[in-house]
Amino acid sequence: MTGTVLFSVAMSLDGFVAPEAVPAEDLFGPARKQDDPRVRLWMTRWSELHQAAFPQRFFRENLKLGTGGEEGLDNDLAQQTHARTGASIMGRRMFDAGELSWPEEAPFHTPVFVVTHSEREPWERPGGTTFHFVNDGIEAALDQARAAAGDRDVRIAGGGTTILEYLNAGLVDEFRITLSPVLFGVGVRLFEGIDADRIALEPVSAQPSPNGVTHLTYAVRQR
Amino acid sequence: MTGTVLFSVAMSLDGFVAPEAVPAEDLFGPARKQDDPRVRLWMTRWSELHQAAFPQRFFRENLKLGTGGEEGLDNDLAQQTHARTGASIMGRRMFDAGELSWPEEAPFHTPVFVVTHSEREPWERPGGTTFHFVNDGIEAALDQARAAAGDRDVRIAGGGTTILEYLNAGLVDEFRITLSPVLFGVGVRLFEGIDADRIALEPVSAQPSPNGVTHLTYAVRQR
Repeated sequence: MTGTVLFSVAMSLDGFVAPEAVPAEDLFGPARKQDDPRVRLWMTRWSELHQAAFPQRFFRENLKLGTGGEEGLDNDLAQQTHARTGASIMGRRMFDAGELSWPEEAPFHTPVFVVTHSEREPWERPGGTTFHFVNDGIEAALDQARAAAGDRDVRIAGGGTTILEYLNAGLVDEFRITLSPVLFGVGVRLFEGIDADRIALEPVSAQPSPNGVTHLTYAVRQR
Repeated sequence: MTGTVLFSVAMSLDGFVAPEAVPAEDLFGPARKQDDPRVRLWMTRWSELHQAAFPQRFFRENLKLGTGGEEGLDNDLAQQTHARTGASIMGRRMFDAGELSWPEEAPFHTPVFVVTHSEREPWERPGGTTFHFVNDGIEAALDQARAAAGDRDVRIAGGGTTILEYLNAGLVDEFRITLSPVLFGVGVRLFEGIDADRIALEPVSAQPSPNGVTHLTYAVRQR
């Protein structure tokens, strides 16, 4: 019995999971451009999108931002998603940004498989996260992640493009959208290029949070 | 004291309020093309988008589809929105499609202001709906709708383009999205072209329905 393949992301009401792309170096690098209007807008939008996550106890502790924080639905769901995840998968762009912005103890605490064209030896971090670099595509990365996860689940961590590749390949069983009360207008659309003739959704739950977001969970079915 | 200006629409999880445009004549005209694949796809998608609305008692009675039907949250909200609406506004394309598809007793039962470049005398239908054709823009249509609505509210009925014009002009106070568990991939996006630097949202309520949709209500604020 293998686990579920899932993703869980915050999305603006108009369907965006990230603001317009800005180079990770400009956002998080040693010479970050904090006064660049594009960087400022990216940071503002990113904060709005994740406004319900930042104050949560789990989020603060896992990213080493401090102790304490809110508890309740948003915290419980974040913690549950983390606990069920035995391995994560991400695209190269998410990894590149994370390498510049995660704390030394990266926030996964499991094996992470990075889908990339670059070859690199596994990168082990304190706290149980080891990044493995997979050069032969999304299915190979999923096979390795399943093996590493055992009977726990595999989470497609992001970014949007990588999630969509897994979704369109019919490899995602379930997902959660944390719908945020914000409009972006431009940016990275989660479902841009979705194969809508193939993918059907079965609603599992809709959980409104007192923080203004709504957690929407769907099972994925093939039409 | 004037009423609220609102809209209330069904939206796919990926942000669409209508499938890809097909001429109204092909969908609803006397020579409708029921075997055209584009028409079939439009009908399928439209049915999926409104799957929670069709079985409702209010919907069936108001569109003369029969008596009886479901009662509960979806029915209550549809009925409440209808009851608070003293006048509606719509774009020309929505009117053109409706003229071919509404029953003789059109489902508004109030004055309706159609924003159009075509001049036409008011068109009175049995049951209290009178269509007025406004040729001098969205603000003039709103002024006339407010005057007709008295202390009741004005509803921007659609379509998506007309709703967005009102939203970007800062003329909408509140809206409801009935988020449907379906992905379109292509079609008419509600928020395409939104002025996100100007429009902020304040979440009012999120109401999950047993029919798989979630009713999300927001107040509109200017940034």
